[in-house]
Amino acid sequence: MDTFYYAPYTCALATHIVLALTEHPHQAVRLDFKASQQRTPEFLAINPKGRVPALVTTRGVLTETPALLLYLAQMHPEAGLAPLDDPFALAELQAVNAWLCSTVHVAHAHRPRAYRWADDPAAQAAMQAKVPQNMAECFDWIESDLLRGPWVMGERPSIADPYLYTLAGWLAGDGVDIARYPRVQAHRQRMEALPAVQRVLALHA
Amino acid sequence: MDTFYYAPYTCALATHIVLALTEHPHQAVRLDFKASQQRTPEFLAINPKGRVPALVTTRGVLTETPALLLYLAQMHPEAGLAPLDDPFALAELQAVNAWLCSTVHVAHAHRPRAYRWADDPAAQAAMQAKVPQNMAECFDWIESDLLRGPWVMGERPSIADPYLYTLAGWLAGDGVDIARYPRVQAHRQRMEALPAVQRVLALHA
Repeated sequence: MDTFYYAPYTCALATHIVLALTEHPHQAVRLDFKASQQRTPEFLAINPKGRVPALVTTRGVLTETPALLLYLAQMHPEAGLAPLDDPFALAELQAVNAWLCSTVHVAHAHRPRAYRWADDPAAQAAMQAKVPQNMAECFDWIESDLLRGPWVMGERPSIADPYLYTLAGWLAGDGVDIARYPRVQAHRQRMEALPAVQRVLALHA
Repeated sequence: MDTFYYAPYTCALATHIVLALTEHPHQAVRLDFKASQQRTPEFLAINPKGRVPALVTTRGVLTETPALLLYLAQMHPEAGLAPLDDPFALAELQAVNAWLCSTVHVAHAHRPRAYRWADDPAAQAAMQAKVPQNMAECFDWIESDLLRGPWVMGERPSIADPYLYTLAGWLAGDGVDIARYPRVQAHRQRMEALPAVQRVLALHA
């Protein structure tokens, strides 16, 4: 059985939800980032990047959210979470996930992980100060364009929904009032109505 | 015929090379970032993000390098640039591209685009000062682990190779001596020996 490594409310939540939605057999192992459990020799042997999510399979370890999301969609085509046989539609979906990964997640990361990009504490503070603006700009565009509704890609849920759900959950901590984004907020409620999501959230509490 | 928008030596180079490798019918339109041509109303109507690459197809516009690379691999299975029928192997490949996109490209972007993440010029300078260290750490790991050799994923070229090639091309400008990475350097030479790569490089000169 696959082993899934996560830390509560990190981006691993997105993959965790898709594991539940696809009923992918796995055991979940919770890491405590406050205790630096992602930096132990044991975990670095699993993922040298010292990050979650990581999925240990019989063939090896898989990492990186967009890759894991597509993997689970491919392993469970019956779940219908990606248009696997339509390259254009799949590319539209992958473009959403790539942007969430490289732009929105990165915009957020400048608050808790500013030290990655500058050593000077004053510079880190300057980065943190800009996070609300950058996250708000991202979600302005999500609200007006990216989120087609009712689900990210339109009528059908896909692997983009748990990813958007996860990143939108960071807005409050980033100092952005989600009430500015009624469509994003409704999407969150739609996600939280799913029993699979509720089961996973209980593991992140 | 599809229209491909690029700017010289940006990350669009990766998609441009795959367009050539797959002989995907297209016309290429070069944008001049120094003249802010990615910010004209005409281009923002094509890609509201004001970025390249963007591929205008008969079904709509596709953006984001990892999405475009997989799209072209799917549209041209005969090119053999991705293990489309092996979800695990594809996820390993996608994990490489996701990491290049969200970590390596982002590490580099803090030099030319530091203004994205802080308004204070001193903070921007602090970010720029750390870019050589961050890029070197990324390429240390690429050299020792990620690049399997002779190609990124091993014996066969894939859509990860043009992407690594593109990002490695930024090392000199980022103040990192590529000679520290003999395997990456040999990979560059391997790529530049391909006629398709030579044709594309002529369009970026």
